[in-house]
Amino acid sequence: MNKVQPKTLSGFMELLPNEQVLFNQMQDKIRASYEKFGFLPIDTPVIESSEVLLAKAGGETEKQLYNFTKGDNNLTLRFDLTVPLAKYVAEYYNEITFPFRRYQIGKVYRGERAQRGRFREFYQCDIDIIGDENLNIINDAEIPAVMYETFKSLGLDNFTIHINNRKILNGLFEAADVKEKSVDIMRTIDKIEKIGKETVIAIFKDDYNMSEESINKIVEFIKINGTTDQMLQKLEDFEIDNELFNAGVSELKEVVKYIRLFNVPEEAFKIDLSIARGLDYYTGTVYETFLNNYKSIGSICSGGRYNDLAGYYTDKKLPGVGMSIGLTRLFFILNDIGLIKADKNSISDVLVISMVEDLSKAIEIANELRNANINTEIYFDNKKIKSKFKYADRLKIPYVIVIGEDEIKSGLLTIKDMNKGTQEQMPIEEIIKKLIK
Amino acid sequence: MNKVQPKTLSGFMELLPNEQVLFNQMQDKIRASYEKFGFLPIDTPVIESSEVLLAKAGGETEKQLYNFTKGDNNLTLRFDLTVPLAKYVAEYYNEITFPFRRYQIGKVYRGERAQRGRFREFYQCDIDIIGDENLNIINDAEIPAVMYETFKSLGLDNFTIHINNRKILNGLFEAADVKEKSVDIMRTIDKIEKIGKETVIAIFKDDYNMSEESINKIVEFIKINGTTDQMLQKLEDFEIDNELFNAGVSELKEVVKYIRLFNVPEEAFKIDLSIARGLDYYTGTVYETFLNNYKSIGSICSGGRYNDLAGYYTDKKLPGVGMSIGLTRLFFILNDIGLIKADKNSISDVLVISMVEDLSKAIEIANELRNANINTEIYFDNKKIKSKFKYADRLKIPYVIVIGEDEIKSGLLTIKDMNKGTQEQMPIEEIIKKLIK
Repeated sequence: MNKVQPKTLSGFMELLPNEQVLFNQMQDKIRASYEKFGFLPIDTPVIESSEVLLAKAGGETEKQLYNFTKGDNNLTLRFDLTVPLAKYVAEYYNEITFPFRRYQIGKVYRGERAQRGRFREFYQCDIDIIGDENLNIINDAEIPAVMYETFKSLGLDNFTIHINNRKILNGLFEAADVKEKSVDIMRTIDKIEKIGKETVIAIFKDDYNMSEESINKIVEFIKINGTTDQMLQKLEDFEIDNELFNAGVSELKEVVKYIRLFNVPEEAFKIDLSIARGLDYYTGTVYETFLNNYKSIGSICSGGRYNDLAGYYTDKKLPGVGMSIGLTRLFFILNDIGLIKADKNSISDVLVISMVEDLSKAIEIANELRNANINTEIYFDNKKIKSKFKYADRLKIPYVIVIGEDEIKSGLLTIKDMNKGTQEQMPIEEIIKKLIK
Repeated sequence: MNKVQPKTLSGFMELLPNEQVLFNQMQDKIRASYEKFGFLPIDTPVIESSEVLLAKAGGETEKQLYNFTKGDNNLTLRFDLTVPLAKYVAEYYNEITFPFRRYQIGKVYRGERAQRGRFREFYQCDIDIIGDENLNIINDAEIPAVMYETFKSLGLDNFTIHINNRKILNGLFEAADVKEKSVDIMRTIDKIEKIGKETVIAIFKDDYNMSEESINKIVEFIKINGTTDQMLQKLEDFEIDNELFNAGVSELKEVVKYIRLFNVPEEAFKIDLSIARGLDYYTGTVYETFLNNYKSIGSICSGGRYNDLAGYYTDKKLPGVGMSIGLTRLFFILNDIGLIKADKNSISDVLVISMVEDLSKAIEIANELRNANINTEIYFDNKKIKSKFKYADRLKIPYVIVIGEDEIKSGLLTIKDMNKGTQEQMPIEEIIKKLIK
């Protein structure tokens, strides 16, 4: 018979079981952290009506969509979890209790150009808090606090959450009368380390026709640095006649105050006046998160505050704040740079091996272990003892219980610690006690 | 601005948070049961190349596919987790340790006609054990034992796993020389309770030209009933000169022997010679599972043994046995008939409410609770105390901690048990002890 080559599409992550166990552990820890802060789970469909999903999309995103028809329906695979959240909150507005603290962990789809470390199907792990009409600024501090806890629980410690407030930048550009060019100006500022301050000033003057005063203001702003408190002080002292700017500074100050109250240590967050994030979506606090030793990877967890989550669906004003971890990419990166290691090939704690053909005793022992919630496998095949141990070795199952004539007679089972290579004899009750520890 | 109606596609289950919490609890229990038996997780893409996914498909299924092109690729959304498993095992054959015990929980897609209780996107929760060349018959007993444990963990007890062996039916039809008509004959037999034995015999004679001897044999077979042991005895005594039939009986006997050793009680399984399941896929043991009081719902967990998992991809002979729970439909049914109830509106154990404007103490208390792994929310909005308690009420958060001037001074916090309506005062350390119990 002609065979079809069994091949997974490029850009789609598919893991071997040992890596999958590790991936799932990470996902479990993220979920546990989110739940510790009382976020509620939701699970929206992967497929949505294109009309609904693309109500606010456009430009870059459209090209990447998985879009198709089925019958009379024009359908699209979700490309993030934010638009489905907007749909969900607008659709079930009357049944939801606000502030609505929700998390969602699920796969999203973007037909990006395939390249190493970029995925077309990937897990996003989102938290958002949605208010009805209003949402207290403290939420903008709690969101990064959740992420701090989450990354700690993943075993990471050398990371920094960068925080800014879009009102500061918008106010600055408004005051400099270059609001409509703010995207380009931000891009130019981003290049300052590469092209030098003088070139940036020249671009401002020649390309954007900015006044000398405006340029000076922006240059003065770019130079703001120091500790968190020094930066806040400099921002407060910054001479600018713009309400938005001042509102942004005062929000940023509040966020810093509360993030400290949430016990996020000083080294885990910083004010970074250069981050802006997708310019028309976010309206206040914005976040990016970097691994300090691997900054070139880019942000591993981003988000921010938005004035109006679901304006395309409803007249209700629903402000929110959230952050998202791109778990598939994060897993790939951490694995690649060696910060995590897939060293668990099995989900089992114990393998039960029988030396006698009758497996009754082996099954009885496995039943008792499973009743005690100990993950247990039995080796069923009638192979040589060497093959049986080889199976345990390959799967790195930590303990093997061997059952032979002697064990059945005496009731003392042989348990072998596969890591240490040692073995002991004891009754099943003691084995259970030993393994539950 | 014109609004787009926020609407979820019909046939796609989307739950409110309280139902989602319940759904996730069920999924967690299924996963825990599978892991207790040492099954390893895998997670394959939702999208696969059509060539790979449809290598063995055809007929009924094709019509239901979500199929589309993206660039040069013809793509299909997975319609089950078995074909992806076949691809996975063939693709990573050299890296897999056999017998390969894997579980997968994930969404699959079938564009069926939308109707109540039928879903186009639904979760399947599959376990399979795949052998390399051979697979011991004990595995055919362990699979339903896992499912028995799984359903018990879900709180169900009035269910029965029906077991048959395809070799028995195939042997019977082979001996009656009507092998190629076996599908139609099975369908006719299925109708026996509706149309009566005499009509069935007439159909056998007139439509299939079966000899009187063959008809008598089949009628004799249909009449086999009694307890499990009685049925096994009758099958062994059944006079038929057919190897396949006898092999099937002997396998069924082994499965019954071992399923008992796995402590599955007598009332939770039965031999059911009428179940066949998708006739060209399964080759040995087959299973269906019924809720005893709701048989009309159909099987809630089915599966069986197959000779050759991945013949379309590889020359390796990979026999396997597995079962699958359609979780989305099961959840819908159990919710519908009231066997489960979404009574948890929140993931939080505690809501911290502050009576004073400065939230420092509230945050400090929440930090301590979260450090003790107690799911905790803080009410941030500066509203009246009544609004704050209303939030806890609506989300049915079991405990509320109230922090006012007195509490801050004394260090004795007020904790209110929202279910009982009682309240006590105690220091945070005691609250933590109380809640961890």
